[in-house]
Amino acid sequence: MAKSIEPKLASGFRDYLPQDATAREWMIETIKAVFKRFGFAPLDTPGVEREEILTGGDANFKKQIFKLSLAGQDEKTALRFDLTVPLARVVAGYSSEISKPFKRYQVGSVWRGERAQAGRYREFLQFDADIVGASSIAADAEFISLVYEALSALGLKKFIIRVNNRKILNALPESANFPKAKTGDVLRIMDKLDKSGWKSVEAELVSGPKLKKESVARIKEFLNIKGTNGEILGSLIEIFGKAGASRDGVDELARLRANIEALGVPDGNWKIDLSVARGLGYYTGMVFETVVNEYPDLGSVASGGRYDDLVSRFGTASIPATGGSIGVDRLFVALEKLKLFPNFSANASVLLLNFDDESEMICESLATDLRQGGISTEFYLGQEKTLRGQLAYAAKGNYPFVIILGSDERKKETVQVKNMRERTQEEIEKDDILEYLKNILNC
Amino acid sequence: MAKSIEPKLASGFRDYLPQDATAREWMIETIKAVFKRFGFAPLDTPGVEREEILTGGDANFKKQIFKLSLAGQDEKTALRFDLTVPLARVVAGYSSEISKPFKRYQVGSVWRGERAQAGRYREFLQFDADIVGASSIAADAEFISLVYEALSALGLKKFIIRVNNRKILNALPESANFPKAKTGDVLRIMDKLDKSGWKSVEAELVSGPKLKKESVARIKEFLNIKGTNGEILGSLIEIFGKAGASRDGVDELARLRANIEALGVPDGNWKIDLSVARGLGYYTGMVFETVVNEYPDLGSVASGGRYDDLVSRFGTASIPATGGSIGVDRLFVALEKLKLFPNFSANASVLLLNFDDESEMICESLATDLRQGGISTEFYLGQEKTLRGQLAYAAKGNYPFVIILGSDERKKETVQVKNMRERTQEEIEKDDILEYLKNILNC
Repeated sequence: MAKSIEPKLASGFRDYLPQDATAREWMIETIKAVFKRFGFAPLDTPGVEREEILTGGDANFKKQIFKLSLAGQDEKTALRFDLTVPLARVVAGYSSEISKPFKRYQVGSVWRGERAQAGRYREFLQFDADIVGASSIAADAEFISLVYEALSALGLKKFIIRVNNRKILNALPESANFPKAKTGDVLRIMDKLDKSGWKSVEAELVSGPKLKKESVARIKEFLNIKGTNGEILGSLIEIFGKAGASRDGVDELARLRANIEALGVPDGNWKIDLSVARGLGYYTGMVFETVVNEYPDLGSVASGGRYDDLVSRFGTASIPATGGSIGVDRLFVALEKLKLFPNFSANASVLLLNFDDESEMICESLATDLRQGGISTEFYLGQEKTLRGQLAYAAKGNYPFVIILGSDERKKETVQVKNMRERTQEEIEKDDILEYLKNILNC
Repeated sequence: MAKSIEPKLASGFRDYLPQDATAREWMIETIKAVFKRFGFAPLDTPGVEREEILTGGDANFKKQIFKLSLAGQDEKTALRFDLTVPLARVVAGYSSEISKPFKRYQVGSVWRGERAQAGRYREFLQFDADIVGASSIAADAEFISLVYEALSALGLKKFIIRVNNRKILNALPESANFPKAKTGDVLRIMDKLDKSGWKSVEAELVSGPKLKKESVARIKEFLNIKGTNGEILGSLIEIFGKAGASRDGVDELARLRANIEALGVPDGNWKIDLSVARGLGYYTGMVFETVVNEYPDLGSVASGGRYDDLVSRFGTASIPATGGSIGVDRLFVALEKLKLFPNFSANASVLLLNFDDESEMICESLATDLRQGGISTEFYLGQEKTLRGQLAYAAKGNYPFVIILGSDERKKETVQVKNMRERTQEEIEKDDILEYLKNILNC
């Protein structure tokens, strides 16, 4: 035999054992039901894409992607790092099959080769929804409502969806008087306000893009705009009253606010926040991110925005698109810490014991009756031969009901039913057990 | 701008657009519900594993796996090619967290770099269930029942689960008088009986492992054992009556038959078939595969068996295990050809039209009411401004209901409801529309 191998995961990856996998499955089903209610339809694309699709042919592409190799194959492929690039490929590649607006959701793993750190993994699940071919603010607003409904369905109450518009940020060079070429650097630094505080941001604006004092002061003034959504919009109109591009952004933000309110998203769960930038280039209008109040360190658990150059890398004419992504694995951590998961059992409702060889086939027949009647039923198949041993297994596995059908019961055509939570036991006609359990388990 | 990129898939991969993705999602949910009824709990492991885990440290490992590379990383990793090896890693790695018997299911993509051919892809979905730590024939029988129930739940009626026992096959050198070292080659050739017919198998047994005529005749005699399950068992007892190891296999098969019958699997959906081998080495007892009667060329749509050396590569003491895997993508092809998919709509139940700027926010508020009431609702967000244009979109997308809330209705606090299938239209109080739709849509 070969030397024995250590059964360990690749570094930066994780398993979900049954209890956690059950909880995650519940999350996915809950979010999916909300997305379907908004009229999003599923899309599935492979984890593997041609490398060129992922990098956009950019030789300086900096994302850490996992490249693939296969003996005897020349084609360059890699694992997807998000679900947006595959969506763009689909929109460009099936333009005749897809009618627009195209509302799709997709849930699937994405892979990023970032340095592994606590709570961040190299393979994680994304749950995306996007509307392709919709340019209206109403489409943007729908995502704020979608995130609100999805997080609420998971039982979260205290979270804030922070909303901004990139047009306002993109007009900063004009309003704060610095060279347009520095916009990217400045936005990246501003984005750290929440984590690092103003002092650090200020220092970096001077040391990095070398902004003049006056520009730094204007940015500070801009970032200091606070208050209710109405107050923020008021201040923005004061500051950006005349500038063309930024005024567009302010108008869009005002209209977005009205739409979000019409959609019934409570004031406590969303706010305009001018520090939200969501990285570089990509976004062209609304941007948003979402923080769980008790766990800001988790980072954003749901983010997105409008990006109108989705398919440009495929040489297709510009298509308006807006969307968002829910970070299932970060939310998993939040729900676990907040104890918001329902009381799942990963196991069956009924454990049918098995310690009498002659009863085996009668038990199997009963197991099939219960399963076909909709009762999840495990027939004990382990090595324990004693009642005590099998009951210990039942207790450890948190099975609500245990059924005993041994030689006594076989003769009487009955079964013993143990209610493990109430610690009671009843003898019941074998023919009545399905109805009995259906009533108790409400199915 | 960079040169434009062709929006095409990597070779050997496929997409599922919404209509197909909806159908596949229904398949997964249907199979999952059956697996849960049998008491299987979910497990999730990453798509990426350490290469050594996958190859078992075997330098001659021949499976075509996709190897991964990441700039600046030495660790050798690759994509999983099945869900059984990751299960083995989990069982060996979390022995204290997992109580046995461990009944888990897992659904996920696996990757194999085989040459692409029609209907076979390099990334495909597997749906596995296994019981680890159960040595009984009752555990084996459960998988035949599981496959029967899962395929029946998908609406399939005409399929046959073909069952055999590897111990009988492994005793062939003894009963057909050829060197034990040739067993692997002989089984691999026998496995082709269905596809190539006896003439071809016979020729290959002579040209390949160079069996003597007498041995070939014995193998032919063995493969010719046919008839009802009872007749096959009778012939087997005649042939293998005395031999030790093979007699064990026959006894197991007889007991398996009794268990499968007790579990209520109809005779028409399973049979003993001595030609089923399921490849090399791996399996140690029961083996099975499943053919859809109308589409034998699809290959097996559900297969598995007992494999008692699951964790040996991790140096852990031998653990009995038995399991099976459902090939979702092959079944997808069968269900599509047999037109067994329910009449899905990938889209929402209601399309709320949008051609009156002043009504936009009232429509949004209504959309939220309907969604929160459980009615999937799409608010039209496309570029069409006319009633005719939006109705064409509704017809193409097969939405059952269309709601119009324009300036007239706004004044009257009503809505127009179009039943698109019955081609009727009604005017209804806006406050009554949720109840109205709930009644019609039964939710």
